[in-house]
Amino acid sequence: MSNLERFTVSMDQRLLKQFDELNKKKGYANRSESIRDLIRERLVSERWEFPSKTAHAAATVTIVYDPHTSDLSENLNHLQHDQGDLVVSTLHVHLGHHSCLETIVLRGTANEVKRLADRLIALKGVKHGKAVLTVEGEDLP
Amino acid sequence: MSNLERFTVSMDQRLLKQFDELNKKKGYANRSESIRDLIRERLVSERWEFPSKTAHAAATVTIVYDPHTSDLSENLNHLQHDQGDLVVSTLHVHLGHHSCLETIVLRGTANEVKRLADRLIALKGVKHGKAVLTVEGEDLP
Amino acid sequence: MSNLERFTVSMDQRLLKQFDELNKKKGYANRSESIRDLIRERLVSERWEFPSKTAHAAATVTIVYDPHTSDLSENLNHLQHDQGDLVVSTLHVHLGHHSCLETIVLRGTANEVKRLADRLIALKGVKHGKAVLTVEGEDLP
Amino acid sequence: MSNLERFTVSMDQRLLKQFDELNKKKGYANRSESIRDLIRERLVSERWEFPSKTAHAAATVTIVYDPHTSDLSENLNHLQHDQGDLVVSTLHVHLGHHSCLETIVLRGTANEVKRLADRLIALKGVKHGKAVLTVEGEDLP
Repeated sequence: MSNLERFTVSMDQRLLKQFDELNKKKGYANRSESIRDLIRERLVSERWEFPSKTAHAAATVTIVYDPHTSDLSENLNHLQHDQGDLVVSTLHVHLGHHSCLETIVLRGTANEVKRLADRLIALKGVKHGKAVLTVEGEDLP
Repeated sequence: MSNLERFTVSMDQRLLKQFDELNKKKGYANRSESIRDLIRERLVSERWEFPSKTAHAAATVTIVYDPHTSDLSENLNHLQHDQGDLVVSTLHVHLGHHSCLETIVLRGTANEVKRLADRLIALKGVKHGKAVLTVEGEDLP
Repeated sequence: MSNLERFTVSMDQRLLKQFDELNKKKGYANRSESIRDLIRERLVSERWEFPSKTAHAAATVTIVYDPHTSDLSENLNHLQHDQGDLVVSTLHVHLGHHSCLETIVLRGTANEVKRLADRLIALKGVKHGKAVLTVEGEDLP
Repeated sequence: MSNLERFTVSMDQRLLKQFDELNKKKGYANRSESIRDLIRERLVSERWEFPSKTAHAAATVTIVYDPHTSDLSENLNHLQHDQGDLVVSTLHVHLGHHSCLETIVLRGTANEVKRLADRLIALKGVKHGKAVLTVEGEDLP
């Protein structure tokens, strides 16, 4: 990290104690790291709540489905290729005879990414789907 | 605030800049206040994710419904009186001819409160319902 | 309910069994009621995710705070009166010596309501705050 | 789908109209498919809210980080190998000079999976992390 800045935070010592316990439980190395994470998480959710039309975003879509569902694999493939400028990469995991998990990495504007995530989750045969909306990260120190 | 403690946080100055902009937008008086809020919010969500059986919790349930739905007002009343040890108070707001909003304050153990919130939201005639899970606050400095 | 329409839903019987068990647990009277709730919840979250500039919305903000915090009650009052066209009503509950809960009902456009909710939650002295974003309900059958 | 069951749902026609519009927007082929998705999503979130100690679960953790952060790649590797019985597979995507995205598929009991997800997200150098909690799917028709 270049250009590190320091500032002082004041807090009731009982609140600080609870924070320290949480950090220990979560495995945080120190308070600064945990506070930076809280701030970045808030910044990311703010960007998705009030998205700018042009800003670039990233997301992963996780779907669980039965690979024997007719047409699903084909529809998944078609959708991903049709939107090839948004789809970066896909990871497929075999979970059982009638179940597999796929996680698809998307990049694009927030609105495009949201729309494609919705369509992937809505495909017939997808049992459960959810998106993680995140950022490309270059501008999030 | 008694027993104030101070500690130093280090952060990339570009991250700090984004944080300061967000705080300004949200109306935070200073960084410490915003950081305390992020920490308390995390502590509250942690308590609800891993609730202890005995710890006391508070919640508000907001429901929107059509007051002309037969039986609903009666069912709402019955449910609230049956569970009188959990229901603290209720605020009713008239929104329109066919719509009113009610917000119900609950106290009890996390599990009791969750269950009653679920039942209130499930009542026939409730159009939209959602709970805010919070804490009683005495132990959250 | 006027103008009731009926349609048929098909479902694997094992999924239906799990759905029936959940409905029983949540206290739903029948499947239709539970399905209508799932649909309305999705419609409401969709409206808040892609808000129209002019559509009217409602929300409740729940905050927990220590009533002895200097300036907070005054700031709460000021903010609510400054934004009097958005604030409909407020319910105050005494939780303990150092803790009270307030739930504030707001109406306005989605963006105005979000912004005021953010500012209320950001007030110095508020320990925990969260908004429920809902609708005015007239247009949600 | 074997053992298909059919049942009738009744709904105000204005609600049905809004539902049909949403389904069209999201790309759903028909109402049944959309309703099954709403039900499955509710069942999955219920399982994570009230997890059984022994039931198996799956999750994906998405993290965005700067690959130049010292020790992070090593720590990520160590953590994933230490918990090798929980980590199934990992997908790594290069987003830019100072940013990459990794999505890690986990399987195990809900509590184990939650705890490891928390630790991955808490690693020093991770800018943004979020988990999708899902199911193995065999028992979700």
